[in-house]
Amino acid sequence: MTEIPLPDDAAFAAARARQATLTKPQGALGRLEDLACWFAARQGRGVPAPVTAAITVFAADHGVTAQGVSAYPREVTAQMVANFARGGAAISVLARRAGARLTVVDVGVAGGLPRSEAIVHASIRPGTDDLSLAPAMTRANVERAIAVGVERAAADIAAGATLLVAGDMGIGNTTAAACLVCAFTNELPDAIVGHGTGLDEAGRARKVAVVERALARARARAPRDAGDWLAQVGGLEIAAMSGYYVEGARRAVPVLLDGFISGAAALAARAIAPRVVDWMLAAHASAERGHRAALRHLGLEPLVDLGLRLGEGSGAALVLPLIDAAIALHAEMATFAEAGVLRRDP
Amino acid sequence: MTEIPLPDDAAFAAARARQATLTKPQGALGRLEDLACWFAARQGRGVPAPVTAAITVFAADHGVTAQGVSAYPREVTAQMVANFARGGAAISVLARRAGARLTVVDVGVAGGLPRSEAIVHASIRPGTDDLSLAPAMTRANVERAIAVGVERAAADIAAGATLLVAGDMGIGNTTAAACLVCAFTNELPDAIVGHGTGLDEAGRARKVAVVERALARARARAPRDAGDWLAQVGGLEIAAMSGYYVEGARRAVPVLLDGFISGAAALAARAIAPRVVDWMLAAHASAERGHRAALRHLGLEPLVDLGLRLGEGSGAALVLPLIDAAIALHAEMATFAEAGVLRRDP
Repeated sequence: MTEIPLPDDAAFAAARARQATLTKPQGALGRLEDLACWFAARQGRGVPAPVTAAITVFAADHGVTAQGVSAYPREVTAQMVANFARGGAAISVLARRAGARLTVVDVGVAGGLPRSEAIVHASIRPGTDDLSLAPAMTRANVERAIAVGVERAAADIAAGATLLVAGDMGIGNTTAAACLVCAFTNELPDAIVGHGTGLDEAGRARKVAVVERALARARARAPRDAGDWLAQVGGLEIAAMSGYYVEGARRAVPVLLDGFISGAAALAARAIAPRVVDWMLAAHASAERGHRAALRHLGLEPLVDLGLRLGEGSGAALVLPLIDAAIALHAEMATFAEAGVLRRDP
Repeated sequence: MTEIPLPDDAAFAAARARQATLTKPQGALGRLEDLACWFAARQGRGVPAPVTAAITVFAADHGVTAQGVSAYPREVTAQMVANFARGGAAISVLARRAGARLTVVDVGVAGGLPRSEAIVHASIRPGTDDLSLAPAMTRANVERAIAVGVERAAADIAAGATLLVAGDMGIGNTTAAACLVCAFTNELPDAIVGHGTGLDEAGRARKVAVVERALARARARAPRDAGDWLAQVGGLEIAAMSGYYVEGARRAVPVLLDGFISGAAALAARAIAPRVVDWMLAAHASAERGHRAALRHLGLEPLVDLGLRLGEGSGAALVLPLIDAAIALHAEMATFAEAGVLRRDP
C-alpha cells in the first residue's frame, strides 16, 4: 500500500483568509483563487511559492495498430520522439515558452531512435502485443514500466520540480487508453472511444469493436487490480505515467494532468493508490470523446477547454502560465489595508 | 463613417495551409490553430509575429451609486486607481507577468488622485450624473470621452502595441454597462443585470429596477445612435473604451476584450462602426450575468471561462500567454517534411 500524504488544511484555510483581504471583491478571481489555495494546501504554506514544472513525455508503441485503429502509421512514434528531441514538436515549443524542462523517455518504442541527450532510453520491450488478440504485455513488464515512471518522477523532483507534467507519445494509444477508461469506470466503449488522431466515423466504429473485443477477452481473465488491467489492455507509456503520478503524490509534489491518455493513466494511478487524486489538477478538457468522462470519474474539473486533442503533455504545458498567474496574484496583490481601500463587507 | 480595414483573407488561407503541414494531427491544437490564423489575417502575413500587448485601464465614477447599486462605496474608484499606480492591483500583477505596459487613464474619477507617472490625467468631469434620474452626461462629454480613448489607442500603437487591451475601473459601472447592453441588444434587464462586485439577491432586484427606470427614461428621449445612448445611460470610462476599440480597428490593430464592462463598450463600438467586430477577440466569459449575452450578440466565443468577474482588463491580461503560445506554435513547430514524419492523409 503506497502512502500518500494529506494536503495541509491549515495552509488551505490561511490561503482562503488571505484571498479575502486582497484588493478585489470576494471571489472575483474565480478559479484563480481556488488554484492558489489548492497549491497552498499542497505546499503547506499560506502563500505558495512559484512552481517549477517538469514535463516528461513517455513514448511507446502499440501492437493494436495492426487493427487499423489509427490514422497514422506506427513509425510515427519514433519519428515524433526524434522531433521532440530536436525541439520541433508542439510540446517542445510549449515547454520552451513555459521555461519548463522537457525530458522524453523511451519505454517501448518499436523503431530505432537517435541517441540524444534529450532522450532517456528505458525501453522495456519494442511495443506491446495486439491487445485485441492477447494480453498487451506481462505483469512483469507493467511493473518495470511503472518503475520507470517512479524513477523519472524522483529524478524530476531531485532536479527541483515542484509540479509534474506527464505527456504521452504512442501511435495507437487512444485505443489502449479507451480500454483502461472503460475498465476503471465501467463506461461503455461507445461513450469513451473517440476519433484519436483523425479517424472517420467508420474508423471509430471499428475502434469501438476492437475495444469491446479486448475488454471481453480481458474480463475473461478476471483482472484483480490495476497492474492486471494494464497488462491486459494497457500501454508501456501509460503504465509509466501512472507510476509517475503515484510517485509525485507520494513525495507531496502535485501533478498536472493533460488529455485522454493522461486521464487513463490517472485512473490507473488511482486504482493503485486512491488518494493520489488529492495531488492531481486537470489542465484542460480534451476534444477526445472519453476525456470528460474520465475527469468526471476522477472528480476533477478542467481549467480550460480549447478543443485540444494532441497529447504530448501539450494541454498541461499550455496552462502553466495560468497557474503562475494565480500564484503571483495571491502573493503580490495588495491587501485592502496595505492599499488603503475601503470595503463594505456583506 | 469610420473606415475599418478588412482582415487579409490570403494571409488567413496561408496560415491555414501552414497549420496543415505542422507535425500534429489536423485540428489537434483546436482553438490555438484558429487563433494563429486569426492573427495572421489581422497582421497580413501567413506567419504572424509575436504580439506586443498594451493594457489601458479607463477609470471614472458613476452618479448612480446613490441608488445603492454597488457593494462598495464610490471612494473605492480613486483608491483603486492609486492601487493600480502602485502596482498592487490584480491587473498590475497580471500586466507585469505578461510583460505588457499598463497605463491608467482618469477620464472622470470623482475623488482626488495622486500625481503619478502611471496615471494619465484626462478627466472630463468628476463622474456622471445619476442615470436613473437624468442623462448620465452630455453628448459633448461622450464625444470627449471617446476622443480620449482614440488618443490612448493611438499612443499605445505609437509605442509599439500590436494588441490592445482596455480595462475598466468605476464603482457602479456594471449598472451603466447593463443599461447599454440592454439598449444595444434588446435583452431584458433581468437577463443582463448581475451581482456586480457582490450584491445579494435583494440588491440585484433593486439594480434591475434601477436599470428598468433608466431605460424607460432614456427611451422616452428617443436616442438616435451610440453617442445618444452613452450620454443617457453610459459611463465616461465605457465611452473611452469604445473609442479605444474603434481606433484600434481603424488602425488595423486587434483588440482583446475583457469582461462585462468591456462587452458593453464593444457593443457601443459596434454601434459606431459595425466592422470593428472583425478586430475583436473575446478573452474570457465573465461570471457577471449579462456577459455571455453580450458576447453572443457580438458573435464572439470566449477563449476561457474561469469564473472571473473583476474587470480592470484582468481576464484579457490573463489569456495573453495563450495567444503567445498559439503564435509561437504556428511559427516554431516543425513541418512533417522538416521533421521527416510520415503522414497518412484522410
